[in-house]
Amino acid sequence: MKIKLAENYGFCFGVKRAIKMAENEHGAATYGPLIHNNKEIDRLKVNFDVSLKNDLSEFESADKVIIRTHGIEKNELQVLNDKKVNIVDATCPYVTKPQQIVEEMSLKGYDIVIFGDEEHPEIKGVKSYAQGNVYVVLTQDELELIPLREKIAVVAQTTRKIENYLTLVNHLITHHKEVRVFNTICNATFENQDAARALAKEADVMIVIGGKNSSNTKQLLSIAKESCKDSFLIESSEDLDLTWFKDKKLCGITAGASTPDWIIMDVTQQIKNI
Amino acid sequence: MKIKLAENYGFCFGVKRAIKMAENEHGAATYGPLIHNNKEIDRLKVNFDVSLKNDLSEFESADKVIIRTHGIEKNELQVLNDKKVNIVDATCPYVTKPQQIVEEMSLKGYDIVIFGDEEHPEIKGVKSYAQGNVYVVLTQDELELIPLREKIAVVAQTTRKIENYLTLVNHLITHHKEVRVFNTICNATFENQDAARALAKEADVMIVIGGKNSSNTKQLLSIAKESCKDSFLIESSEDLDLTWFKDKKLCGITAGASTPDWIIMDVTQQIKNI
Repeated sequence: MKIKLAENYGFCFGVKRAIKMAENEHGAATYGPLIHNNKEIDRLKVNFDVSLKNDLSEFESADKVIIRTHGIEKNELQVLNDKKVNIVDATCPYVTKPQQIVEEMSLKGYDIVIFGDEEHPEIKGVKSYAQGNVYVVLTQDELELIPLREKIAVVAQTTRKIENYLTLVNHLITHHKEVRVFNTICNATFENQDAARALAKEADVMIVIGGKNSSNTKQLLSIAKESCKDSFLIESSEDLDLTWFKDKKLCGITAGASTPDWIIMDVTQQIKNI
Repeated sequence: MKIKLAENYGFCFGVKRAIKMAENEHGAATYGPLIHNNKEIDRLKVNFDVSLKNDLSEFESADKVIIRTHGIEKNELQVLNDKKVNIVDATCPYVTKPQQIVEEMSLKGYDIVIFGDEEHPEIKGVKSYAQGNVYVVLTQDELELIPLREKIAVVAQTTRKIENYLTLVNHLITHHKEVRVFNTICNATFENQDAARALAKEADVMIVIGGKNSSNTKQLLSIAKESCKDSFLIESSEDLDLTWFKDKKLCGITAGASTPDWIIMDVTQQIKNI
């Protein structure tokens, strides 16, 4: 049986970069989980002495903090600086960008609209950089309730769909004189999905590796099933079932955005051994 | 028979303003026809001694030139200034705005995209204010051929439809990091159309006054006919036909964007006399 990996799978650029930074910071602690994968968090602890702290108060002077890809709020950064904590900033550059835009545009007098989930850490961080009016919305109904002024700058959560962003932006353009639109959407999630879709068309069995509760992974599974009915979700090689591969010619493999490469390589090796 | 005028009809704000300015400038000449209506141009000549010149070379020092609503190109303005011609600027404020935006944005390093007709005087004028890269497009196909850089500012011809503008703008937002969108569309044309549509639903005969070759007027006629089959296009009261009004209860009246009020009033009076 042949094995083929999707053209894009697993960690995005920002997460890969953050993991690499963490591996070089022995004795540091991440502020919040670096990724949604306990096995990877354990590996960083065991192999690189990088621990996890969930509360800002746990950090003390001379500690080393790793800021995760989502970024943090501006006042939290201030607290860490005031405490003289050493900061390793692994904020994804695709998240730093909207933080900078929001700060610059609000200093220039623009009302800020953020398309995203108010409760998401990335958006809490981005929003905190506004110096004036700032509104977080997900729907046009929410947008219509906002008393916006004439000059508006708008950014999006990195993981949102462009189609939905355009719906909101079009409403703004139609009703306001100037709208400064920043395309802050990152295509990593969609590239993984497109690659899974393409591979599922060739493969006669598809293995999707990722958390069983990860919405990202479940979406990959559902995309794979559209073209390949024999698509299976596993968290690691232990979940593999030999019967899946009987009489199959091409096994396609993809992985969710929180699945580390070493788990993917292990699964690939196990399937090769079948 | 009752007579009802559409809630919006005839001249837009900019044309009304230009005519009023011309009426106060005895001895002046407009550079190009002030509106697409020969009767109105004759009236300005006969009653207010305002003539028409079609070539820049016809203006001499101490002459008085009236710049029409469409505006003119920046270098033409320079020629007039160099000649010390007295300038009465009747450029519509809705046209001055995109001229200023194009100048300011191109000085700030933005590539400029103008949604409009390259041959239209308004667009020739607006385009002439660019200090750097500037592209005039009407379709997405044209847009895709342009080698745009990352920062883009976009304006629209005042008479374009917002839906078509959004199509181009959405393409830009999807493919570029920053798009600064200025909504420079003026609603006057669409307000006349909406008012004609509403009135035609009530009326049992509709009179549309305007040039028989005016696309603007023909569009009003076609909108009126959607709800009122007895809709007629006339250029002046001489075109009225008594049989149209037999057994009718409500006559609706609207007029194209180049139809002066005095023609509309004359038609209204003649119908009242029937």
